[in-house]
Amino acid sequence: MIQSTGASSPVSPGRARCMMTSNMCGCREGRYGCTAVSTERCSVSTGLRSWMQPKQEGEFLIRHARVAPPAKKCAFVLTRDGRPVKVQRTIFSECFYTMAMDELWKATGDPRYQREAVEMMDQIIYWVRVNPTGLGQPQLSGAPKVDSMAVPMMLLNLVDQLGQDDNKMSRKYAELGEWCSQQILKHLQRDGQLVLENVSKDGTEIPGCLGRQQNPGHALEAGWFLLRYAIRQRNPELKTHIIEKFMVQPFHSGWDNENGGIFYFQDADKFCPTQLEWDMKLWWPHSEAMIAFLMGYSETKDPNLLNLFCQVAEYTFERFPDMKHGEWYGYLNREGKVALSFKGGPFKGCFHVPRCLYMCEELLKALLVAS
Amino acid sequence: MIQSTGASSPVSPGRARCMMTSNMCGCREGRYGCTAVSTERCSVSTGLRSWMQPKQEGEFLIRHARVAPPAKKCAFVLTRDGRPVKVQRTIFSECFYTMAMDELWKATGDPRYQREAVEMMDQIIYWVRVNPTGLGQPQLSGAPKVDSMAVPMMLLNLVDQLGQDDNKMSRKYAELGEWCSQQILKHLQRDGQLVLENVSKDGTEIPGCLGRQQNPGHALEAGWFLLRYAIRQRNPELKTHIIEKFMVQPFHSGWDNENGGIFYFQDADKFCPTQLEWDMKLWWPHSEAMIAFLMGYSETKDPNLLNLFCQVAEYTFERFPDMKHGEWYGYLNREGKVALSFKGGPFKGCFHVPRCLYMCEELLKALLVAS
Repeated sequence: MIQSTGASSPVSPGRARCMMTSNMCGCREGRYGCTAVSTERCSVSTGLRSWMQPKQEGEFLIRHARVAPPAKKCAFVLTRDGRPVKVQRTIFSECFYTMAMDELWKATGDPRYQREAVEMMDQIIYWVRVNPTGLGQPQLSGAPKVDSMAVPMMLLNLVDQLGQDDNKMSRKYAELGEWCSQQILKHLQRDGQLVLENVSKDGTEIPGCLGRQQNPGHALEAGWFLLRYAIRQRNPELKTHIIEKFMVQPFHSGWDNENGGIFYFQDADKFCPTQLEWDMKLWWPHSEAMIAFLMGYSETKDPNLLNLFCQVAEYTFERFPDMKHGEWYGYLNREGKVALSFKGGPFKGCFHVPRCLYMCEELLKALLVAS
Repeated sequence: MIQSTGASSPVSPGRARCMMTSNMCGCREGRYGCTAVSTERCSVSTGLRSWMQPKQEGEFLIRHARVAPPAKKCAFVLTRDGRPVKVQRTIFSECFYTMAMDELWKATGDPRYQREAVEMMDQIIYWVRVNPTGLGQPQLSGAPKVDSMAVPMMLLNLVDQLGQDDNKMSRKYAELGEWCSQQILKHLQRDGQLVLENVSKDGTEIPGCLGRQQNPGHALEAGWFLLRYAIRQRNPELKTHIIEKFMVQPFHSGWDNENGGIFYFQDADKFCPTQLEWDMKLWWPHSEAMIAFLMGYSETKDPNLLNLFCQVAEYTFERFPDMKHGEWYGYLNREGKVALSFKGGPFKGCFHVPRCLYMCEELLKALLVAS
């Protein structure tokens, strides 16, 4: 019996492609493109420039990411020469494609990239809000009707991305942004005591472990997406609400008081989660938590949030970076020891770490300037 | 970001259905049916009889397991009232359905059950050897052309099941049995030094971590399937070869000399596997190892194999059973501590434990009688 086979490949330290299988991850490549262009544009990380070639990467994506153009479904994994290896029946590869195209448009000014971004964005909205059949997921009569927090989170992040420095896009997706924020807020359950990953379509708790599932790092990531939304909306009540419910609460629920670090999964009733990796400490919840608390502190100057940022940062920088070869490990066991020694794999690409370092550096610089 | 969501439910100790989501696992239910009927037939476990009702379970499967009859694809998970929740794009749910139907035929003598078993078996053979498109897996140009050991293993187990006490079926599937054994033997690679889970269609090693993947418990399970085949074939050279290559070697490669127990995944070149759970100790590799070594000892009287059985049994019975509430835990961490406290979940059903206990009891009884 095989329970699961996460089939992709470790990569050499500091390299973003899976050299050992000759494959690359389309979804991750999207994030990669976005982060690469973003860092390039803002000139914060000149060390990265030598091996990042955003325009070539963008052209590669345009040529190869879609599995059967003109249809818009994108591959999750591609071979190095651009043939699709794996397609997911979700919207996420397409979202990262959109993100990469929009960043590329902002970096180069080439309108073709913006057209690509907007066309894909509108297709994603159609899948999410009108008709999901194009995603290829069969509709089964016993499958629970569930709203996962990942979908509106991802879309809210895209609304932010496309609307940044672009009033026209900001107006185009204003209603969508409001819808996304309401959809995410639906996941705050049990009289506002906790964030659940999956709720019913009408925003109630669903039975079973799927309904009880918590993912503290995900709640924190949703937290800073929502906080940016509240900032754009100039809504101080929403800001306060989000910091409390999507940052402070999930952190206190998810922090391992015995060993430090943020648990990957939890069960709202303290049963054992069904994910084998539930008690592991992953790099990305810690990256997202640092962004969330630093952004929260920048907005409120509440010293408690700065302390939480420091608590996460201390654990993170002590445990995750490989001080000898560079880059971060991705997966620690419950006790905080490295459990998987590769730096890039099926899900750990060049996305969360540079986004975290870049955003935290920007936030800290602004705080220094203001002080 | 969510890396994975194994969505199903813990169950109460000693109960085989997922009470908390009202769902049950079709694939597991097939195994369950098979084990239930098997134990019923052989009257080894009267304690189980009170809650196992094989005929009702069989009728439930006939009515509900297939997603869109007369097509033969079966659900992997059903609701308690029989609606499909999840369908896998593999042959395994259908294999367990076949196994359950065949056992039910042998227990009841009702020819309808045998007809069901044989019709499904022939469909599975068509998917595997002629045309897999009915399984619903899209053919992607970059996807590696890979043979997984799980497929011929499962089929060889079915050949054994259907042919047992049935000369007609034994003859019908004789060629298939030979084909399966050859397919499994293809996975012995690197000059016979190790068993790889995935090889190319023509039996060579494939590049990347997918090609380097080892699963010692799976090799041991394949080992005793092959050993039974060699016994039926009265082939002593094959017996010796299998015991060495599919039992002793994978065990010595997979045993954790520091903490005890069999690792879940390994990499043939000692790189870090990409599966987050690679260093966990799961109940089923230990169950399968006990069967393998006891069967090997029964055949050869080699005391080394008895010692290996004892080594695995000692670890297993010390760590996995819940001495207070009964049943076995399924998932220990690297150090052998319980990592997930439920007794039944998305993949741990009522299959490996009773099969192991029943088969080991039968083997030990026969050894006692013979001595």
